[in-house]
Amino acid sequence: MARDPRYDLLFTPVRIGPVTAKNRFFQVPHCNGMGHAMPLAHAAMREVKAEGGWAVISTEECEIHPSSDLTPYVEARLWDDRDIPALALMSDKVHAHGALAALELSHNGPTASNLYSREVLIAPSHQPTKYGYPAQARAMDLHDIREYRRWHREAAIRGKRAGMDIIYVYAGHDLSLAMHFLQRRRNQRTDEYGGSLENRVRLLREVLQDTKDAVGDTCGVALRFATEELLGPGGMELNEARDIVGMLAEIPDLWDVNVAAWYNDSLPSRFAAEGAQEPFIDFVKKTTSKPVVGVGRFTSPDTMVSQIKRGVLDLIGAARPSIADPFLPKKIEEGRIDDIRECIGCNICVSGDMTVSPIRCTQNPTMGEEWRKDWHPEKIPVRRSESRVLVVGAGPAGLEAARALGQRGYEVNVAEARKELGGRVTRESRLPGLSEWARVRDWRVSQIGKLQNVSVYQDSQLTAQDVLDFGAEHVVLATGCHWRRDGYGRSNGLGIAGFADSDRIFTPDDIMDGRLPQGRVVIFDDDYFYLGSVIAEALRKHGCEVVYLTADDTIASWSVHTLDYRHIQVRMAELEVDQVVSHNIVGLEGTTLSLEHVWSGKPRTLECDAVVAITARLPDDALYQSLLSRQQEWTDAGIRSARCIGDALAPGLIAHAVYEGHRYARELDADPTGDVVFKRHFHTD
Amino acid sequence: MARDPRYDLLFTPVRIGPVTAKNRFFQVPHCNGMGHAMPLAHAAMREVKAEGGWAVISTEECEIHPSSDLTPYVEARLWDDRDIPALALMSDKVHAHGALAALELSHNGPTASNLYSREVLIAPSHQPTKYGYPAQARAMDLHDIREYRRWHREAAIRGKRAGMDIIYVYAGHDLSLAMHFLQRRRNQRTDEYGGSLENRVRLLREVLQDTKDAVGDTCGVALRFATEELLGPGGMELNEARDIVGMLAEIPDLWDVNVAAWYNDSLPSRFAAEGAQEPFIDFVKKTTSKPVVGVGRFTSPDTMVSQIKRGVLDLIGAARPSIADPFLPKKIEEGRIDDIRECIGCNICVSGDMTVSPIRCTQNPTMGEEWRKDWHPEKIPVRRSESRVLVVGAGPAGLEAARALGQRGYEVNVAEARKELGGRVTRESRLPGLSEWARVRDWRVSQIGKLQNVSVYQDSQLTAQDVLDFGAEHVVLATGCHWRRDGYGRSNGLGIAGFADSDRIFTPDDIMDGRLPQGRVVIFDDDYFYLGSVIAEALRKHGCEVVYLTADDTIASWSVHTLDYRHIQVRMAELEVDQVVSHNIVGLEGTTLSLEHVWSGKPRTLECDAVVAITARLPDDALYQSLLSRQQEWTDAGIRSARCIGDALAPGLIAHAVYEGHRYARELDADPTGDVVFKRHFHTD
Repeated sequence: MARDPRYDLLFTPVRIGPVTAKNRFFQVPHCNGMGHAMPLAHAAMREVKAEGGWAVISTEECEIHPSSDLTPYVEARLWDDRDIPALALMSDKVHAHGALAALELSHNGPTASNLYSREVLIAPSHQPTKYGYPAQARAMDLHDIREYRRWHREAAIRGKRAGMDIIYVYAGHDLSLAMHFLQRRRNQRTDEYGGSLENRVRLLREVLQDTKDAVGDTCGVALRFATEELLGPGGMELNEARDIVGMLAEIPDLWDVNVAAWYNDSLPSRFAAEGAQEPFIDFVKKTTSKPVVGVGRFTSPDTMVSQIKRGVLDLIGAARPSIADPFLPKKIEEGRIDDIRECIGCNICVSGDMTVSPIRCTQNPTMGEEWRKDWHPEKIPVRRSESRVLVVGAGPAGLEAARALGQRGYEVNVAEARKELGGRVTRESRLPGLSEWARVRDWRVSQIGKLQNVSVYQDSQLTAQDVLDFGAEHVVLATGCHWRRDGYGRSNGLGIAGFADSDRIFTPDDIMDGRLPQGRVVIFDDDYFYLGSVIAEALRKHGCEVVYLTADDTIASWSVHTLDYRHIQVRMAELEVDQVVSHNIVGLEGTTLSLEHVWSGKPRTLECDAVVAITARLPDDALYQSLLSRQQEWTDAGIRSARCIGDALAPGLIAHAVYEGHRYARELDADPTGDVVFKRHFHTD
Repeated sequence: MARDPRYDLLFTPVRIGPVTAKNRFFQVPHCNGMGHAMPLAHAAMREVKAEGGWAVISTEECEIHPSSDLTPYVEARLWDDRDIPALALMSDKVHAHGALAALELSHNGPTASNLYSREVLIAPSHQPTKYGYPAQARAMDLHDIREYRRWHREAAIRGKRAGMDIIYVYAGHDLSLAMHFLQRRRNQRTDEYGGSLENRVRLLREVLQDTKDAVGDTCGVALRFATEELLGPGGMELNEARDIVGMLAEIPDLWDVNVAAWYNDSLPSRFAAEGAQEPFIDFVKKTTSKPVVGVGRFTSPDTMVSQIKRGVLDLIGAARPSIADPFLPKKIEEGRIDDIRECIGCNICVSGDMTVSPIRCTQNPTMGEEWRKDWHPEKIPVRRSESRVLVVGAGPAGLEAARALGQRGYEVNVAEARKELGGRVTRESRLPGLSEWARVRDWRVSQIGKLQNVSVYQDSQLTAQDVLDFGAEHVVLATGCHWRRDGYGRSNGLGIAGFADSDRIFTPDDIMDGRLPQGRVVIFDDDYFYLGSVIAEALRKHGCEVVYLTADDTIASWSVHTLDYRHIQVRMAELEVDQVVSHNIVGLEGTTLSLEHVWSGKPRTLECDAVVAITARLPDDALYQSLLSRQQEWTDAGIRSARCIGDALAPGLIAHAVYEGHRYARELDADPTGDVVFKRHFHTD
């Protein structure tokens, strides 16, 4: 198909100093949990985006010196020349597709850890470290400032030698000395680098100029700059940011602007819509003649065009949309808008970096698997047999299995017991704030709609006999799971007395099915992620009084890994949801919950009309078990394999379900492998 | 010197199946944050212990399959043959010193993460994961159990091929399927592997037998077994453990017994004394004829002998004491008891594994540096000049610098302003529970006492003029730091109104100097580690009413990395210390603290007689600054260098101070290096 002329603007080149971006699509720096530890995997992930049409592909932040060691987080590294080859792997692959490679240099000062390097941390002034590490950073003297500038200059030159086309100076996310010197709470110096704004800007100006002097002949020099921290006068504020942009307007070749810290930049879709940063960054283009890039989880080409036409941005920055769909630019270019796999804003990608593991994506199961499993987001090997496949269940696992099997060319039939498709995705997306999660269903349903070889049957509950009668060679059961009602979970391995038989116990399934409690409701969260707070929100909107109870010491503790945590806390406070933490449930009798403090053992009671128990789930695998019990009939029925996937095998995230569905499709008829089904990096030399 | 005959018993050999330990010193498996990611560093660390006389050197836990991926934690790995070389590095080095190498095989089931491998987690029954990971583990079917046994058998064979002499079956710490099948809360199976004790023990028995069949001809087969979890009937309890030991008594070649989970096993010295596990494990030796090893942070040879003579243990197990002093056995053997660098039980070693960074030790600054910096715990290069060194300050940094410089042969003078030596170590060790920390001082003072070339002067406050007059070529300032009184810290980058001038504000220095508040005291902990709870304890003992206030969402959050956290929570509950979390201080007026909830912004007041502000520290570097201001006089005074180290440079842990002192001594007169002063592993292939 041809490109819609409305979007032509997105494909005009933009000069960035001495280099030119071939279009307006700019993958801004983003972490990925692979970094210097898995450079081949990292390079392949970046390459796929270059292939998908992005004009600029950036690294994650890159440590410029051992005193900016970010361990345990795995980012890029340019401590000395020996680190060049790892980054050159990436630029070579990016160049192969006509894209530019960009490198985000950073010295993280008091926001580094130095847990690995064991160097002493440095900062504008003596101060504690950011993440609770029990060592302070020391105040840099003038010699230290000269050294820092030298390290930055040398890293820029190494970046150029590694083939990078754009070198970033990083003053964003409260993560870099170039920003720390700007911040009053971090910079309490009394010399020429502290005090007045002119003094606090001095170092950033110097480092920008150093970088231009060092590599500006052939490399564009970008400044990533945070305009607002939402922390009041201790942090960067919009008014001061305006002044700073004015002072430095024409020095960098490119302005990359956003809001700090990371949790305010990469907001989950639950807490911010597309383009939410505009009010914080729209002044920049009015202040500089240089191109401006910004982010806003942009997936709509109309929104992108609007950003450019209205003079907000020159380049459409993206991290998460490029993860969910590395081929987003190409799909717009080819007039295939409805093929775009839109980011759902769940931030599972962020959890990779946060848990020191390779990036994964709910929408794009190939993310992070480009090198080690040779998975491509758009291509998949053609089928290796004429087998028919019956997929039972059209939730995220079933839909993705059917779609990917269909893409391979298999004849696929999908039977869904409910009237609606999407399974848990559909049901959860109706909960407050999660509507964008429905994109997981919508993209797959729409793609399946284009495949002649995939048929979908709704309202079709199957029995084992139905499956045997159907006669597909392969049966894949993606029948989901349900929440337990007996209290069994992390905190209560033997269940909770009084739960199983009480009609005051509700589960998340009840809530999603519209069976809502009334009055004073206790949400018992033994799950620790998003669902507790989402249900709290639903019940508050329903008019309930809500107590959020957990045996953990904070609510929603795992949500820190998706940057939800702080926003959940604020939302719960706004909704006046009471919190009772560090208390486990001993039992329920009538309307009385007996609690016990997990540390003191002190008993306490809580009166309530109902309890929502978010504890653990059980697979809905009755059909699978029934088929297993009739395995001797399979051969006659023509069945060669039957497998459970997704929540029906092991309840997890939507991301896990999509991944399992995709993996099932990839591995069908594949040659057998050993126990390790992917390539690895080894470290014996 | 000759060995004291009282300790001869510690040096008799012990048969472990087909192999023989040359003495009774057994380094049990312990994590180290290097594992499969840094195998050269790991092997060198283990080698130093073999050189130091330990008869057996174990790995950390070793993943046997991708479905037991422990990411982000870095342990050993034997997923397939390609992992053999990394472990062979270690056994070769261990064998070079006549020691045995032991391998702790583990499949962690629902306590794995699979964040890297992306395999589905497995468990005896469907259940949530241990650490809050948002995916459940699925119930293993009989095929899975057979597969698990195959993986374990194949890993044992790979271990043997890697040169391991002892292969462990791991049923400890709530971390391994072999244990999970024993636990009622994790095993709710209704087949032959669940229900009765006989059934729950079945898998462990099978795996032990599998391992003996696979490698028992040349390898000893050890069972690491937890006898108690302190969780009641959901977990392992002593009564059932007795039955299990009875059932399996003669199957393993060695019993390695301890208490679960890790936080109950490796208790900080604040919460347990040497030998504290005896009541939980002393029954084992009475039940089996096989040798028994156990731990108890043993550093006293008399205690060790007593354990053996009284029939508690056959082999003296140690993790932490072997980290603090890899040469502990050799020192006993050579009659050098007072050279033993005794573990202080601070658990900073544990924090390496917990923060995914190489192990470090407060007492032994060379730990983790054996390969990358070529640091040896006992040897140090001889001095390269006749320079005299003046060390100002006899805290942990100054004492270690003086000791190591003395060991190198330099003429060293130490001037301490106070009457007592040890600086913060001496002062902190007087706080409740921290008395063993004084070992940091005692060992160094005792070692310095043996060095003719080191002189120590107490009660000797020096001025810059004194230093210039002294005329040492090198001056090292280890003058410590003090706690701020103005509220400045993580939560208040501009300080706190009303703090600086109030006589109701106390700092940790006041407490350590014996200036204690009275009445109702608020401890404001902006530090997040141990000090808040230690001071709370001191003030409760002093008769104060104590409120523990923090802007963080839990108290003492960083202490989770040293396994203190749970014990601190229990201790605070026992002492009836009130907690106010998630509240920052807006200001203090008279006896009224104005607080603000960090998430809701809701104001609140708190009446108190005093506030202990644990926020941030400032270096006591006035002498250094004064010397710097007179730098033009240095040459005439003969001074070639002056350097600040330890808390006087950047306040941190005692571990940081000792490390900096040691590093100073190592690097004096050393050849200049580049910016990266250690060897690294690279990962480009």
